[in-house]
Amino acid sequence: MVYVNGAGFTRIGLLWKYDLEDLAVEAALKALEDSKVGSVDAILVGNMASGVLNGQENLGAVIADALGMAGVPSIKVEAACGSGGAAVMWAAISIMSGLFDSVLVVGVEKMTDVTDVSDQTSALATAANARYEASLGASFPSLNALIMREYMKEHGLLEEDFAHLPVLMHENAANAEHAQLRFRISIEDYLRSPYISEPLRLLDSAPIGDGAAALVISSKRTDESVEISGFGAATDVISICQRDSLTRLRSVELAAKRALKMASLKMRDVDLVQIHDAFSVMGYLNLEALGVAERGKAHVRVEKGDFNRDGWLPINPEGGLKARGHPVGATGVYQVAEIYLQLTDRAGRCQVEGAETAIAVNIGGTGSNAVVNVLRRC
Amino acid sequence: MVYVNGAGFTRIGLLWKYDLEDLAVEAALKALEDSKVGSVDAILVGNMASGVLNGQENLGAVIADALGMAGVPSIKVEAACGSGGAAVMWAAISIMSGLFDSVLVVGVEKMTDVTDVSDQTSALATAANARYEASLGASFPSLNALIMREYMKEHGLLEEDFAHLPVLMHENAANAEHAQLRFRISIEDYLRSPYISEPLRLLDSAPIGDGAAALVISSKRTDESVEISGFGAATDVISICQRDSLTRLRSVELAAKRALKMASLKMRDVDLVQIHDAFSVMGYLNLEALGVAERGKAHVRVEKGDFNRDGWLPINPEGGLKARGHPVGATGVYQVAEIYLQLTDRAGRCQVEGAETAIAVNIGGTGSNAVVNVLRRC
Repeated sequence: MVYVNGAGFTRIGLLWKYDLEDLAVEAALKALEDSKVGSVDAILVGNMASGVLNGQENLGAVIADALGMAGVPSIKVEAACGSGGAAVMWAAISIMSGLFDSVLVVGVEKMTDVTDVSDQTSALATAANARYEASLGASFPSLNALIMREYMKEHGLLEEDFAHLPVLMHENAANAEHAQLRFRISIEDYLRSPYISEPLRLLDSAPIGDGAAALVISSKRTDESVEISGFGAATDVISICQRDSLTRLRSVELAAKRALKMASLKMRDVDLVQIHDAFSVMGYLNLEALGVAERGKAHVRVEKGDFNRDGWLPINPEGGLKARGHPVGATGVYQVAEIYLQLTDRAGRCQVEGAETAIAVNIGGTGSNAVVNVLRRC
Repeated sequence: MVYVNGAGFTRIGLLWKYDLEDLAVEAALKALEDSKVGSVDAILVGNMASGVLNGQENLGAVIADALGMAGVPSIKVEAACGSGGAAVMWAAISIMSGLFDSVLVVGVEKMTDVTDVSDQTSALATAANARYEASLGASFPSLNALIMREYMKEHGLLEEDFAHLPVLMHENAANAEHAQLRFRISIEDYLRSPYISEPLRLLDSAPIGDGAAALVISSKRTDESVEISGFGAATDVISICQRDSLTRLRSVELAAKRALKMASLKMRDVDLVQIHDAFSVMGYLNLEALGVAERGKAHVRVEKGDFNRDGWLPINPEGGLKARGHPVGATGVYQVAEIYLQLTDRAGRCQVEGAETAIAVNIGGTGSNAVVNVLRRC
């Protein structure tokens, strides 16, 4: 059996005073303290862009050293924006192997120490295909705008249909102390926000931010344990131009199927979901890939309140990527850390009542990589 | 039990006609064919610098897709120059977990598609500490030159003492078809070669090259299986200025101890060793960390022929990093692939007679990360 026994994270934002190591250390020390574990057998660092953005690879050694833990085996796991979720999954695998009793997972991304916003856009574009997408000028907003346009065409949607998810995410984030964007927005605010890449708007987009989250994952159960009862991952064709559908996230479908099968659960058994809403359209496609909204109808379910904190199936009670924030390689660890707090009744004003089982959907690129982790109250 | 059931690699060199995906696919298809495995449950990609050098992260998805295997879970494992060895170790962990039957490991580095050699030097420097080393202008040759100087001072060594290892490595590589530098050198050649960073010379240094190597690692034994009977990893303080000794590779000492303990072996049981000779001094420090040479005396043992292919303990029969080549994130996979061929009697003119047990030492940075894999004839 695999358990999460502690979690910690920094607030997310433009944290000029903190560098990559500072953030990782703050989150890791909080998680270690929370878990009451004295030492760990290995460290897995979820990070995407430290090489390009911070001139720093070998992040496993850097963070082990910064924690005063030089000696402990430590590597970086990279799966673009899905790096954090992948690090959680591989930590669980290592516990299942019987080799390690406790593993520290640290997700970290320091995105703001660059001189030009184009550096961030280029760094993020390394998650797309260098040959057929990034080198031709396609950025993540423009790729998502293409997907959004196709999704609108397929289902006859209007631009205002996309407002409902960001409105809900900002509503939720207002309650989360660690969130980057803790203000509410209205549908009118959404429609007034500028296009980044038409039809995709500023308020469709997760912000750029710095942050780190950490977990202690162990073979031993404590009074504050939450079980990792399943996980699954999948890849998909990387270039959207080569996929048979732009509006189906087959990696999420496959990863969720694998994860739920491993946990012997159906999607209807799940009480709480973290979705990967890097852009509004991605959020909707996540919900549709999980089968909790009909294709082309996710916005209707969001508008009806089905995914509110007190709704039929609460999603992202801390505000998701859109408003809690999206420090890319850290995001998947934040998702699981937030679920851990939820399932131990410590999520404060974000608390969802009575949730027993939760899943976190973390994707890389435009869905070319996905990992789903399933957590259950002990 | 964990087995290597197939291996494949490309030749190493300045392979202008091949990009990163081409190299990875060539090696992976060879390994899959060699293993006769039809499908794998996961892919682990060992790579260090694709973000900085190739503008490509999300390498797990990129390579799964390039192999026509979109759908299969796939991530990148990064531990600087130790990425390949770490990918092998984590593949073995996943087999031990019982979750996966077969895992494909691909180590790949495409280093030559840059316009300026300073780009390569900067990319490699991301394996050092960005704050205290790389940002102050320390490159890997200069860091190794400092270590070499200290090692010379501690043990009263002369510059010519460093010639013996590169001479042996070039001798060995002359027999290896996939090696990058297949020419012999003499002690005089060594002493005539220019300083890169005094006292470290061109002929102390592994070349920059492109290459990929792959392995199929499985739970099932076949007629061509070699067992992975142990592995171990460790980190060390990353900045050499903060270590208590510049001339001890504590990460290698610790990783080897852990790996041999897991395999229930002593170092004296080992018949063949792959060492990480990115620079001559590193090669000597590897041997000393393994306890197969006294501190300050490794050059004497090399000169005596103890580590020749027909010597007391053969090392790097294919020429090691120095002459077989060092495509950084691929190197650890090459080491294990070469051992696999050795232990299945398919190493051609590089064959070491009668070896039953072998270890591969793969390090990252100046020893801030190390992984040791132990292989045994079935």
